[in-house]
Amino acid sequence: MTKTRGSGFGARASELAAIGRRFYARGWVLGTSGNFSAVLSRTPLRLAITSSSLPKGTLRASDILECDEHGRVVSKTKAKPSAETLLHVEIAKRRGAGAVLHTHSVWSTMLSDAWASGPEATLAIEGYEMLKGLAGVTSHEHRVIIPIVDNDQDMPRLARRVGDTLDRHPAAHAFLLRRHGLYTWGATLADAERHVEILEFLFETIGRTGGKPSWQ
Amino acid sequence: MTKTRGSGFGARASELAAIGRRFYARGWVLGTSGNFSAVLSRTPLRLAITSSSLPKGTLRASDILECDEHGRVVSKTKAKPSAETLLHVEIAKRRGAGAVLHTHSVWSTMLSDAWASGPEATLAIEGYEMLKGLAGVTSHEHRVIIPIVDNDQDMPRLARRVGDTLDRHPAAHAFLLRRHGLYTWGATLADAERHVEILEFLFETIGRTGGKPSWQ
Amino acid sequence: MTKTRGSGFGARASELAAIGRRFYARGWVLGTSGNFSAVLSRTPLRLAITSSSLPKGTLRASDILECDEHGRVVSKTKAKPSAETLLHVEIAKRRGAGAVLHTHSVWSTMLSDAWASGPEATLAIEGYEMLKGLAGVTSHEHRVIIPIVDNDQDMPRLARRVGDTLDRHPAAHAFLLRRHGLYTWGATLADAERHVEILEFLFETIGRTGGKPSWQ
Amino acid sequence: MTKTRGSGFGARASELAAIGRRFYARGWVLGTSGNFSAVLSRTPLRLAITSSSLPKGTLRASDILECDEHGRVVSKTKAKPSAETLLHVEIAKRRGAGAVLHTHSVWSTMLSDAWASGPEATLAIEGYEMLKGLAGVTSHEHRVIIPIVDNDQDMPRLARRVGDTLDRHPAAHAFLLRRHGLYTWGATLADAERHVEILEFLFETIGRTGGKPSWQ
Repeated sequence: MTKTRGSGFGARASELAAIGRRFYARGWVLGTSGNFSAVLSRTPLRLAITSSSLPKGTLRASDILECDEHGRVVSKTKAKPSAETLLHVEIAKRRGAGAVLHTHSVWSTMLSDAWASGPEATLAIEGYEMLKGLAGVTSHEHRVIIPIVDNDQDMPRLARRVGDTLDRHPAAHAFLLRRHGLYTWGATLADAERHVEILEFLFETIGRTGGKPSWQ
Repeated sequence: MTKTRGSGFGARASELAAIGRRFYARGWVLGTSGNFSAVLSRTPLRLAITSSSLPKGTLRASDILECDEHGRVVSKTKAKPSAETLLHVEIAKRRGAGAVLHTHSVWSTMLSDAWASGPEATLAIEGYEMLKGLAGVTSHEHRVIIPIVDNDQDMPRLARRVGDTLDRHPAAHAFLLRRHGLYTWGATLADAERHVEILEFLFETIGRTGGKPSWQ
Repeated sequence: MTKTRGSGFGARASELAAIGRRFYARGWVLGTSGNFSAVLSRTPLRLAITSSSLPKGTLRASDILECDEHGRVVSKTKAKPSAETLLHVEIAKRRGAGAVLHTHSVWSTMLSDAWASGPEATLAIEGYEMLKGLAGVTSHEHRVIIPIVDNDQDMPRLARRVGDTLDRHPAAHAFLLRRHGLYTWGATLADAERHVEILEFLFETIGRTGGKPSWQ
Repeated sequence: MTKTRGSGFGARASELAAIGRRFYARGWVLGTSGNFSAVLSRTPLRLAITSSSLPKGTLRASDILECDEHGRVVSKTKAKPSAETLLHVEIAKRRGAGAVLHTHSVWSTMLSDAWASGPEATLAIEGYEMLKGLAGVTSHEHRVIIPIVDNDQDMPRLARRVGDTLDRHPAAHAFLLRRHGLYTWGATLADAERHVEILEFLFETIGRTGGKPSWQ
């Protein structure tokens, strides 16, 4: 366990709540959409994660709970973890991510719907300086692939599909759920938040130029 | 009467004012547009409702008054209730709603104008994860119908038309007044505010993809 | 003189500064664009008006000065009044307005450019509920005419052209300067600010539906 | 040296940090994009400049460092200056600018991509009143030329290309890096910030009217 529960959980919970309020202000998590997590320990896997069905504009640290690698709540609380906890667990395991953020923006919803469906659906982005803010990207000439996964209310099935997609795209920084939103992650919460901002910027830019990158 | 006038009215008035300031910040109630109500009691029906013709960016609890089931003011005040009080009463009665919120956004105004007129005009939305934030919707595969009602300055006549529309669409969470705006409601103010955010998100998404849902 | 200089000027100056900061937050007076005035007295005519070339995000009451009916500064100050002071004077005189507000938004700039030039250029808006927030309009079925005046750096000449336009359109609540921005006014600062919000809303709505009202 | 290091650096650092937070709020420097500098002295040339790879929403004066005319850090700090420091130095030298600001907005990214590539690529803007906020422009009839420079990760090479472009366009107030963003400058930080606001306004206006100025 790299971090003790005490200070680790409290600090992560406060940061997750602040991220939620910032994303709400930008219109990326309206309604009760969006959920956010940070890894507290690896062995055993423990996540700090948002409770289910909360508005994000007033999110507080006390709205964050702790869950294990099966998405079961470890904290003493009556609250339920986000319905999409299994997706967070899947990403934390397969990517070794320290934080996972999920948003529902207008532009990500639109772009997720602009490509044919099926396991091969991807959004490719290339040529933008802003790409350099993604971990490991050092030139605007880099081609970033964002898989698009069909939405599903069966969470174990969707988690497996997400797992398969992550395995097929080992370099991906993010994926889109169709007509649903963005999942991205990073080594730290700051990295994951930066990824959200960069990808939202790129989605808006591509969306405004006609829904498909101009170089296609 | 499920709630006493004292604490109930004051708390609801503060919440209504805070909602008005939040909606103003997002540009959903510019000018003096928009009006908001919360049910204080059912028998007899009493509503806390915004006074007429106020800017919403500086709305305070003292700008809220109390009215009865005929839209008559019960509070000791010289202020007039919103001109559209009868619509709030109609919705509170027919839906058993605990709160009714009315906004004038750019996207709702545009979408309300994109379909043919007449009593059968509706906007259908389907396939978006965000729909799950509407009360009782549990899958993105749900089809939500939003009736579009022609605008009218004759309030009793418009209230009857709204009543008929609500009866014809018993599952509707909301309706649009043509070139006017959105009415939605919920069991609580929090539910109604969530509905506004979700529907505004969907209107913008559909509006940006060309004014009609892509699956039509 | 309906108001004394002392309290009148200070109160108006604070209100003008607060309006400037609100409009800046919405992106309606970027750079050093925009200027605002309030009538302090009618006989002789005295205006509180923004100094020239100031950013509006940090506008303070001390940035407001007093000028007479010829646009000459009456306050003891080295600051210059807005270059467009003569337009404010013209509107205050011909309309009896108590306040005049001028903004430069993206949508007003775009719409001002979408119609043929010449003295007959107008933007007509009809059918929107939001129109009822304009002084004297009681139904969405009202047709509002907004004249479009060609821009000019010769202020006395532009002021005469504005005067002629106001005379030709006695019912107009506002006019657009081509590729420049919006002028509107009201009996009070609150009325004029409401007019700005309503007209900006309508410009964005019309602009997003293709640059021309759909009913044309 | 026109300003002493002491008070000069601290004041400039605070101003640069405040500009960063304002631009972040408008969505012009998402991720860790954008960098800002102010000239502290001319002989020898010294710049206060943002450290590399920082989010701008929480920028503080302590995130600013001092560098010389070769882009080398002069401050005692382990932080690295912005990767694009050489571009700031180039602009400060060739234009005598007192401040240089670089932003990554959606509209500037889109417009930088809408013209053919090559050393002759330029965006011409004419006819807008807002142009008068650019230093030395006194009429909307002025034609402003904004060169578009192809992006490059080789900073010394890009700095030379920028230098050549500045020499070829001695009247330019700004240039665009293709699919990257805006560089503009001014005699003071306030002038440079005003230029950013004006150019962003014009990019959005031109972008929304179809990506090319309507008079072309």
